[in-house]
Amino acid sequence: MTDQELIEMHGMISMALEQIEHCSEFAAIIPEVRSNLVFARKNAGTRDDVLAIDGRITVVNRMPRAAGRPRLGASSHMARLIIEVQKYDPAIRAGIDFASTPDLARWLENYCRSNGWGFSVIDRRNEPEEIKEAEGASMPWKVQEAVRACGGTPPVICYETGAIGKEPVSVLLGKDPLEVAGRICTIAGLYHDRR
Amino acid sequence: MTDQELIEMHGMISMALEQIEHCSEFAAIIPEVRSNLVFARKNAGTRDDVLAIDGRITVVNRMPRAAGRPRLGASSHMARLIIEVQKYDPAIRAGIDFASTPDLARWLENYCRSNGWGFSVIDRRNEPEEIKEAEGASMPWKVQEAVRACGGTPPVICYETGAIGKEPVSVLLGKDPLEVAGRICTIAGLYHDRR
Amino acid sequence: MTDQELIEMHGMISMALEQIEHCSEFAAIIPEVRSNLVFARKNAGTRDDVLAIDGRITVVNRMPRAAGRPRLGASSHMARLIIEVQKYDPAIRAGIDFASTPDLARWLENYCRSNGWGFSVIDRRNEPEEIKEAEGASMPWKVQEAVRACGGTPPVICYETGAIGKEPVSVLLGKDPLEVAGRICTIAGLYHDRR
Amino acid sequence: MTDQELIEMHGMISMALEQIEHCSEFAAIIPEVRSNLVFARKNAGTRDDVLAIDGRITVVNRMPRAAGRPRLGASSHMARLIIEVQKYDPAIRAGIDFASTPDLARWLENYCRSNGWGFSVIDRRNEPEEIKEAEGASMPWKVQEAVRACGGTPPVICYETGAIGKEPVSVLLGKDPLEVAGRICTIAGLYHDRR
Repeated sequence: MTDQELIEMHGMISMALEQIEHCSEFAAIIPEVRSNLVFARKNAGTRDDVLAIDGRITVVNRMPRAAGRPRLGASSHMARLIIEVQKYDPAIRAGIDFASTPDLARWLENYCRSNGWGFSVIDRRNEPEEIKEAEGASMPWKVQEAVRACGGTPPVICYETGAIGKEPVSVLLGKDPLEVAGRICTIAGLYHDRR
Repeated sequence: MTDQELIEMHGMISMALEQIEHCSEFAAIIPEVRSNLVFARKNAGTRDDVLAIDGRITVVNRMPRAAGRPRLGASSHMARLIIEVQKYDPAIRAGIDFASTPDLARWLENYCRSNGWGFSVIDRRNEPEEIKEAEGASMPWKVQEAVRACGGTPPVICYETGAIGKEPVSVLLGKDPLEVAGRICTIAGLYHDRR
Repeated sequence: MTDQELIEMHGMISMALEQIEHCSEFAAIIPEVRSNLVFARKNAGTRDDVLAIDGRITVVNRMPRAAGRPRLGASSHMARLIIEVQKYDPAIRAGIDFASTPDLARWLENYCRSNGWGFSVIDRRNEPEEIKEAEGASMPWKVQEAVRACGGTPPVICYETGAIGKEPVSVLLGKDPLEVAGRICTIAGLYHDRR
Repeated sequence: MTDQELIEMHGMISMALEQIEHCSEFAAIIPEVRSNLVFARKNAGTRDDVLAIDGRITVVNRMPRAAGRPRLGASSHMARLIIEVQKYDPAIRAGIDFASTPDLARWLENYCRSNGWGFSVIDRRNEPEEIKEAEGASMPWKVQEAVRACGGTPPVICYETGAIGKEPVSVLLGKDPLEVAGRICTIAGLYHDRR
């Protein structure tokens, strides 16, 4: 009856949230659409196989705050992204989205290079019209672009340029929420203390 | 010591939130950037004169949920909007932003017409380049556009078309948060039950 | 339709909560049963005329935190207390309960004396058996005892000794939640800093 | 670096909370002191080895609501109880406290008997004076009493009679929070529906 994979997933996302909620510098890079932290079951097929934060992670009292509890199916956009990424590397099961500004993008590119991490830009101006117009076709294209730019493996960090009506966001990928939380808090702290 | 205007403002925004949090249909029209409910002091000059919801209004358990408490200065974008609107009509001190889709926009236009309410579209493609580029210049232009389209008074509802990196949102204006909450809950319910 | 008294009540209790949630020293004197902050309408007759905190005020991350939103009818015990107090002095419409220990009680008695405030002890060992057994009869007796000990006016602070199954608590009374919040935060701070 | 036992513990307590927060009938048996759900590490020695709900589980909008997040060290009373119970049976690592009334106690005794579960009453009138007065001595005595009354193994449910200043509470024990949550929700539902 109890599902061991799900128990471990809930445990890791809960501990990851605890870390993120205590990282004041992360509040500064939460985007307008708010952040979500996702964690996909192995071989996830639909959004209901992806654990995410109900209500997303917002900013209250200047600190990151999960609005609700982690729940399967609580994300649409980030869930579809992580499912698509798993097709290239099944070991990458977690991700978080955060702000994207020209300054942060430049900083991230350097940071990734110095860590030997893959970094990709998804330029939405290159998105073919027939894909833009087909419901649900953008995500496979975007992930394909990100992987192509990294040369065969999913990047650790990617960001997409804004499109009409779409806020540009960065995404950090990893094997589980603990890895993702540890890295994003380090990034938020270093970016805050830059120069 | 106690500020009577502020007491009444806190009272109205608190009661308005209570109503919004019980309106399940409103959850369906909360945009990606989440909604904020703002209430400006009379003669508000800066965002610190505008009461707003810390962390915005998100969706938890399929219901609208204020992430934090109402606080002066908790909004930037909607605060600047309501300050600008007050320059045309000081009696309009409250507003809420919500989703904008082509279908909802058509429905809202009809709804406004049948209520005799002003309705405006702000077409961001018309925004002059020099305004786009000047920090802080967009909001006065947007409100001016909305007022111009209504023929001299601020509209009850306006929406802006999306721009690069900007989600299009609708805005409902009113004299105080109780009026705004009552109207947006009616709108959310009617839109949910349409045809 | 809008009820001016209720708007002001919601405003004051909301601003009072904001102050209490930022008073770290108050967390140390929240009792096992948690605190509630109540505010009665003028001439309150039942608990539904009394605004209180849904879920009470608990301690999260070592800080006081209102579990839910202020709501009419959200308190039973403290609501009945404030209704009873109003029979002696209609101007006293707000109160908060907090911890009672022998050390705190001694300190409070001195503090009240030095401020010229009424201070009462309700010794529940003196409660007549017929009152203990009659449903709802204890509260009138307790308030009568507290008033009697003060010599005719409701005390600013009272506490009751514990009884079988009942945690002893202290109560601070006042004209509105802003007065009560200001005073309890001062008390919590001074008690924390005592020698 | 990651602690597998802690991950599983967080996972189970998080999933248990999700179940409890959706069990409306449990709200009716949350005591004045609010409920806590605890989960001890194997061989727990101090409260910092026990995961518990920061701020306890209170009632908001008539539903159970965890005030804060699960955290090691967030409980004192229930943590000491579960540590003491582990001395008799190390497999019992979780527990929740809830209301105790004469009617509920009778019902629970029957329910335990029909399930073949151990049920104990801790009559605090039997507590020796020297134990009452010694700091920290009550809990070992209480658990010893509960075990003694069950004939050698910890009971599934026990309750203590009230003492001066102490609300009587019932406690349900189990091997992990998922077992405890499943059972307490069943109990709350059956008790609610009793004739």
